[in-house]
Amino acid sequence: MKLSSKNIETRLDTVYDAIVVGGGMGGLSAAIYLARYGLKCLVVEKGRGRSFWMQDTRNFLGQDPTAPGRDIIKHGTEQALGWGADFLRGFVEEVTDEGETFAVKVKIGKKDEVGHTLRTKYVVAASGVMDNLPKLDDMQNVYDYAGYTLHVCMICDGFDMWNQKAALIVNTEGQANAAFVLNWFTPYISVFTHGLFEVSAEMKQKLADHGYPLYEQPIAKFHGEDHRMSGIELADGTMVDATTGLVGMGSQRHNAYLKGIDLEYNGQDLVTDNMCKTSHDRIFALGDLKQGLNQVSIAVADGTLAATQIWRTTRRAAEPRKWEENIGKLSA
Amino acid sequence: MKLSSKNIETRLDTVYDAIVVGGGMGGLSAAIYLARYGLKCLVVEKGRGRSFWMQDTRNFLGQDPTAPGRDIIKHGTEQALGWGADFLRGFVEEVTDEGETFAVKVKIGKKDEVGHTLRTKYVVAASGVMDNLPKLDDMQNVYDYAGYTLHVCMICDGFDMWNQKAALIVNTEGQANAAFVLNWFTPYISVFTHGLFEVSAEMKQKLADHGYPLYEQPIAKFHGEDHRMSGIELADGTMVDATTGLVGMGSQRHNAYLKGIDLEYNGQDLVTDNMCKTSHDRIFALGDLKQGLNQVSIAVADGTLAATQIWRTTRRAAEPRKWEENIGKLSA
Repeated sequence: MKLSSKNIETRLDTVYDAIVVGGGMGGLSAAIYLARYGLKCLVVEKGRGRSFWMQDTRNFLGQDPTAPGRDIIKHGTEQALGWGADFLRGFVEEVTDEGETFAVKVKIGKKDEVGHTLRTKYVVAASGVMDNLPKLDDMQNVYDYAGYTLHVCMICDGFDMWNQKAALIVNTEGQANAAFVLNWFTPYISVFTHGLFEVSAEMKQKLADHGYPLYEQPIAKFHGEDHRMSGIELADGTMVDATTGLVGMGSQRHNAYLKGIDLEYNGQDLVTDNMCKTSHDRIFALGDLKQGLNQVSIAVADGTLAATQIWRTTRRAAEPRKWEENIGKLSA
Repeated sequence: MKLSSKNIETRLDTVYDAIVVGGGMGGLSAAIYLARYGLKCLVVEKGRGRSFWMQDTRNFLGQDPTAPGRDIIKHGTEQALGWGADFLRGFVEEVTDEGETFAVKVKIGKKDEVGHTLRTKYVVAASGVMDNLPKLDDMQNVYDYAGYTLHVCMICDGFDMWNQKAALIVNTEGQANAAFVLNWFTPYISVFTHGLFEVSAEMKQKLADHGYPLYEQPIAKFHGEDHRMSGIELADGTMVDATTGLVGMGSQRHNAYLKGIDLEYNGQDLVTDNMCKTSHDRIFALGDLKQGLNQVSIAVADGTLAATQIWRTTRRAAEPRKWEENIGKLSA
């Protein structure tokens, strides 16, 4: 059922089997499975995650390469609701471990100062990441190209950059090393630091050895039309040709709501086992929040794994259903 | 490009980066990724695998629950071809390790007695399983229900059996234990051995304790109409009510072509690492051939992982592309 501030009261006494934080590719896959295992689950989605910004979906079996992420999300939300999952547009502020259950504090809309506390046995963290984009005075100029010809994922879109003049925009020296992977797809790489850090003499030499120009001025503007880049203009007026770009500036993980719980991380990624279970027995993590490839197919499989493990544990703890004791519940 | 006996000669001197054995969910996902990594790949599909028989796809994000497996496969084949993969309808008879490459012997059609030998650096084993169905004199009577109301996968279809009278058809005592998992979805379970084995006194007692009747006669016929079961008739004329069923008779893995290569198995499943690599560095295994859940979402993710690892290894071994050395290849 779709929940909102108008009917959330009906769920304040519910103990969910699982609350899924994030209604992107992984979270919706988990919800579809959880619901079909007959488990009571709720998806809380804040809106506008990474897959919402995907203008196309190149690599995912069964989808046209032009399928926008938001269409798959909309379809998946209907799927999950159809099988009986609850869905709430809201923001998860904090998760507190109460022993048998978690208290999940959710705010619904910006005016909801107090929030609502929901309860669940398991938490599925599927809240993903948001890519860091270069900050310009006119951010609309970035959004005109981001997700079209200015990409954030080399695995997803490297093929579409094949042998093109490509801008690689980075904010640390470590990210600049992406040039030496991107050159599988194209050798015509110009590297931009947007003025954010000092490039070491060693990196300068390595880029020069490959013939990749380095631009350390801030970016003023992207040039092009109809979402197709033609070049980048720097603060000093320099124009650099580029028909495509890769933003390699890292990403922010949406996992602040877990900060009160002691979980094992590897860098920023949650450590999980082969069923997506974190170091806490009742918290699972999917897709971009955990170690591994940030791909739709991986997040969708992660949802399958987490939901299946939650079902297994729940089922094994339940009393077996015997024929005689259930007479009367028989379906028509 | 679509290959056949008419144009296979054009590929006899090719060394593929990867030959994917099986064009089901996993194999096609691998091919889509391999092609978009700019790798030369071929999918060999014998036809009529397990997902071809899937009459609906309940759990896979972004697909309508009524989507037949064969439609997703058809769409995915077009996707893979569209990105530049080769596709051949044929049967892989044997894979031989030649050191740097594998020789893959393929037969195209039943009249192809000699076969054709193709070469590849990597093999992706994605040839899946075929479920064992109860053998009746009239197999059409089995196919009238299999994939509709007579299921082979509890995870996929348990929800659709909810609180219904269900037939569990098994061919070993071990498979009979599925009753005690299936009872999560329904407690009205009748167990059928189709006369294939002796049931131990211990299992008989356990089934009786749960109130699940046991039928040890061979099955004569499924009753129902429009793919909807109503019951099962036994050889002695006994009629048992059941509106749904689960065939838990195990499955055959299509991996005979690997028999000449020493690979690590766990039971019948190939052992793989977290990128789907088998114990042989240049052989990967996906989906139902390896350990793990037999689900579309898992096979699709496995294809992503295997292709990505093959790309990584290939890329790392390649010379880096420098700007000056590539002038002239620039895309328009």
